[in-house]
Amino acid sequence: MLSHPIAGLVAATHTPFHQDGSLNLSIVEKQAAHLLHTGVARAFIGGTTGESHSLSLAERQALTERWMEVTKGTSLKVVVHVGANCLGDVAALAAQAQALGADAISALAPSYFKPRSVESLVDCCAQITAAAPELPFFLYDIPSFTGISLSMPEFLSLGKERLPTLAGIKFTNPDGMMFQQCLYHTEKAFSILWGTDECLLAGLALGATGAVGSTYNFAAPIYQRIIRAFAEKDFETARAEQKRSVELVARLASVGYMGAAKAVMKILGVDVGPARLPHSNLDAAQEKALSADLDGMGLLSAEFKL
Amino acid sequence: MLSHPIAGLVAATHTPFHQDGSLNLSIVEKQAAHLLHTGVARAFIGGTTGESHSLSLAERQALTERWMEVTKGTSLKVVVHVGANCLGDVAALAAQAQALGADAISALAPSYFKPRSVESLVDCCAQITAAAPELPFFLYDIPSFTGISLSMPEFLSLGKERLPTLAGIKFTNPDGMMFQQCLYHTEKAFSILWGTDECLLAGLALGATGAVGSTYNFAAPIYQRIIRAFAEKDFETARAEQKRSVELVARLASVGYMGAAKAVMKILGVDVGPARLPHSNLDAAQEKALSADLDGMGLLSAEFKL
Amino acid sequence: MLSHPIAGLVAATHTPFHQDGSLNLSIVEKQAAHLLHTGVARAFIGGTTGESHSLSLAERQALTERWMEVTKGTSLKVVVHVGANCLGDVAALAAQAQALGADAISALAPSYFKPRSVESLVDCCAQITAAAPELPFFLYDIPSFTGISLSMPEFLSLGKERLPTLAGIKFTNPDGMMFQQCLYHTEKAFSILWGTDECLLAGLALGATGAVGSTYNFAAPIYQRIIRAFAEKDFETARAEQKRSVELVARLASVGYMGAAKAVMKILGVDVGPARLPHSNLDAAQEKALSADLDGMGLLSAEFKL
Amino acid sequence: MLSHPIAGLVAATHTPFHQDGSLNLSIVEKQAAHLLHTGVARAFIGGTTGESHSLSLAERQALTERWMEVTKGTSLKVVVHVGANCLGDVAALAAQAQALGADAISALAPSYFKPRSVESLVDCCAQITAAAPELPFFLYDIPSFTGISLSMPEFLSLGKERLPTLAGIKFTNPDGMMFQQCLYHTEKAFSILWGTDECLLAGLALGATGAVGSTYNFAAPIYQRIIRAFAEKDFETARAEQKRSVELVARLASVGYMGAAKAVMKILGVDVGPARLPHSNLDAAQEKALSADLDGMGLLSAEFKL
Repeated sequence: MLSHPIAGLVAATHTPFHQDGSLNLSIVEKQAAHLLHTGVARAFIGGTTGESHSLSLAERQALTERWMEVTKGTSLKVVVHVGANCLGDVAALAAQAQALGADAISALAPSYFKPRSVESLVDCCAQITAAAPELPFFLYDIPSFTGISLSMPEFLSLGKERLPTLAGIKFTNPDGMMFQQCLYHTEKAFSILWGTDECLLAGLALGATGAVGSTYNFAAPIYQRIIRAFAEKDFETARAEQKRSVELVARLASVGYMGAAKAVMKILGVDVGPARLPHSNLDAAQEKALSADLDGMGLLSAEFKL
Repeated sequence: MLSHPIAGLVAATHTPFHQDGSLNLSIVEKQAAHLLHTGVARAFIGGTTGESHSLSLAERQALTERWMEVTKGTSLKVVVHVGANCLGDVAALAAQAQALGADAISALAPSYFKPRSVESLVDCCAQITAAAPELPFFLYDIPSFTGISLSMPEFLSLGKERLPTLAGIKFTNPDGMMFQQCLYHTEKAFSILWGTDECLLAGLALGATGAVGSTYNFAAPIYQRIIRAFAEKDFETARAEQKRSVELVARLASVGYMGAAKAVMKILGVDVGPARLPHSNLDAAQEKALSADLDGMGLLSAEFKL
Repeated sequence: MLSHPIAGLVAATHTPFHQDGSLNLSIVEKQAAHLLHTGVARAFIGGTTGESHSLSLAERQALTERWMEVTKGTSLKVVVHVGANCLGDVAALAAQAQALGADAISALAPSYFKPRSVESLVDCCAQITAAAPELPFFLYDIPSFTGISLSMPEFLSLGKERLPTLAGIKFTNPDGMMFQQCLYHTEKAFSILWGTDECLLAGLALGATGAVGSTYNFAAPIYQRIIRAFAEKDFETARAEQKRSVELVARLASVGYMGAAKAVMKILGVDVGPARLPHSNLDAAQEKALSADLDGMGLLSAEFKL
Repeated sequence: MLSHPIAGLVAATHTPFHQDGSLNLSIVEKQAAHLLHTGVARAFIGGTTGESHSLSLAERQALTERWMEVTKGTSLKVVVHVGANCLGDVAALAAQAQALGADAISALAPSYFKPRSVESLVDCCAQITAAAPELPFFLYDIPSFTGISLSMPEFLSLGKERLPTLAGIKFTNPDGMMFQQCLYHTEKAFSILWGTDECLLAGLALGATGAVGSTYNFAAPIYQRIIRAFAEKDFETARAEQKRSVELVARLASVGYMGAAKAVMKILGVDVGPARLPHSNLDAAQEKALSADLDGMGLLSAEFKL
């Protein structure tokens, strides 16, 4: 068990593509600059938002390499998501992350074939942590995508014994009771990262100190204000900002969340290109309407834009 | 639309049975006294915790009659759950609730045959509200039991037009984003009652002012402290109490929640008897072990017991 | 264990309503005559097709009474579905069925609260069979509606020990492997009734000898031809008729199966009225279009109509 | 649309590993010989049984290369499964399959991110078929693994317009009605391959002429007898053999299907090694017990063994 407390916002970054869908690494530098501009301290790369399952291994490796280059010497830290169905690929990605000096690794479990027990999940994780024995490891629990619903407290109990680098969980799971059980597990020794942006305030109330999510890419100032207001016990402000977050997410989801979120990045000056299939993308008219709505929501100000 | 703000804790009460499983209405008086003792202002009767689906229509009617008798002249208000698969039965229960002067009615949708659209759900509700035109109506949304996942904001929008007595939602749904969308719908005109006891603190942070749940039957003092601490912005206390709640729920769930919860009532001096099939019940050894654990958790003090 | 072989088609009948949705028992006589006209030997009443969950207990009792009166002295046998969430109601219905001389009873398990093990399912069934100790009992397995997926071979093994009247299963489950396991259980002592009309031919191939379904109400001649052709090993005919069945079901499903099926009955001269909420019904234009299509499919000939 | 009728059994082959889990291509030759020995005409490689999701792209390419070498000059044809979450990898695999002269390709849809409409599914497939414009393409529909439940008849309708090489579907879906709708689509122009080994007889009755499955690797003689008996209209024999198949599958599933199936291969003389995580494998005692049971089932005779 490797204590590695992560506080504040971690942005689950997009993978940038050219219009034809090929990898466009030239944008990574802008992504990093934009995160620094909006006060985000960590980038989570190649996760669900990063469309990792739609990337080849070579593309994932190139992406990691580029992020590590671009963030060198900056204050921005990089958590590399290495999860995949093929554990051999996962091990390769983990080893690369360690070799390049990433801050931590995270992985979801294989999900086409699913671990059927906590033991099996830990067996899978043991292959991952063995490949990067010096990097803190965060399990990525996201049942709505993987279809895997295992007990996270039991995972922590068993993981504590068998995974020397286990540092916590990226908890993208609506189960607030289980969140608390993980949080209080082993005297708060693990970092349990809140994964539901649109309820960050709920997470803070329950005791979350760190959070990972996709909207921290383009709307971090909203969440920074929620965190600040919460610290100052100003619930009126905190709720008003959380309400803005909810309205933003609802707006994006109404036209296909992933494609819409990438369009927001473009509108903010960081053109990460379209999403790959099977995601859909916005057409020009939809993009224009979205831009107008973002403006109406106050999201096109200098605070948000690069 | 009928404004009917509900604040504080609403206990989703158990239906009391004799050891042979027959209705034991003689216990209702104690249940009411116990709720008053622990500072609960409203009883939600005949819901999921009340095993309504395992009761005959006649039993449900007798239960309502008894609760109305017992609470007459007290400060305890009664919300009658009238939902069932048969809308004819639902209408009869709604009419009875109004005739006997209940505080409000609530209903889940038919769930063997499910409404497939918000329109269909509102059609079902219209049959219910027509049978009790003077009582505030709360939809009971509990997807984990009904398998019905419809948009509650859309329900409120359509319901506002077609259901004159619609007053809000008993929101037993882990979707915190949808909770906020309902809360802010129509300028907070509806009461959106938080339904996840083990995360009450999260609900309060998001803006909940009322909550319905089964643990408020036997552990209300814990939640009263959460509410008080939250009001005083004392998060240390609020979280410590919420942690107790989580430990309690986890303990009960480990031996079958419904049977265990009814055993807790007995241990506290309110013998509501066993749960009906298909629920299981605790054997004597399990009950003894539970009692010891409750004691260890500080739940057998005078504050909790009748 | 009570051997009670059921061969051939069992029609899962509709419950007839007036236009206002109230029970219309005057139609039952026509339903029975129509089944006899199309060569169906057994009526399964008050099941899923019969909208049992949308009926009150009193309505279900009246329905059973009427069917027993109407079929007295005819060759048509009546299987009464008694399943419900409330096991007390189930026992009352089972006792009535026995008192009135029904051929058999059948029941699905409680499904709002679900049995979580085969043992619990057998516990529920034991309450049912005890209330009608002389009637053969068929468990009704329909996971797509109940959300209960338990092992039916294990149910038969345990049921054989504990349910003296267990006679088989109404197997409305697409799992053909489990169907065979049930069929061969205990040397074929149980009747395992095929429940998927649109694949009857598959069931016959696997060894089914009896089948229960809703389309046997209005399209029995098609299935009689499938059975006959199968017996004569004329697969060309059997498949062509099964293809008609598939086209018919697809046509009905395209406008809401339950309401459409009841409209077919009306078109055939047996006006069972509309379906209750939450089912939808066809409007006049849809009904006219359906009638034309049925005509095109050859379903309005004397063979099918009353 | 490219007519490519596939008749008889297609074995969904295992990917052979060394004891340490690394690829063991030396076994492929034996696998091919064994299939020829048991009269199987086609190998489906790198599918679910082939643990494709647990293989790296390089491993999948090496596997295909080896199978093409080994089958050169034999009567055994090779269908290459190319499906994956990353459509770029899929295209590379498809192009390789064409370059090496495979008989056909097949692919399941991306399933971490899922196509939400038939249009989106066809968009995904268009990227695949474009990469192998001369090879017949079979969609692989397996909802229990992918969680994708789209209308296959609609897929065929749209695919017919947009996918010039679409030849049919590997239909691993229990929905027998949809199977028929696909079978009769476009006057039987597509090959709809039955994917449920333990109900092959049902498929034959409904009109299936080809079938793909994992048990055809080790128990093809059983299924050859089912096909022969069906052709001779000898249902007694066909059912008795299908019953053997059911018993075999149940036996394997009781100890973890994938690991058990690979153990069967070893017992039959074709040591394909263990399954990769998250699958489990049999220990020595389990393997011994399995061997004894297979012997008791008559599966260790010369007909089955290499």
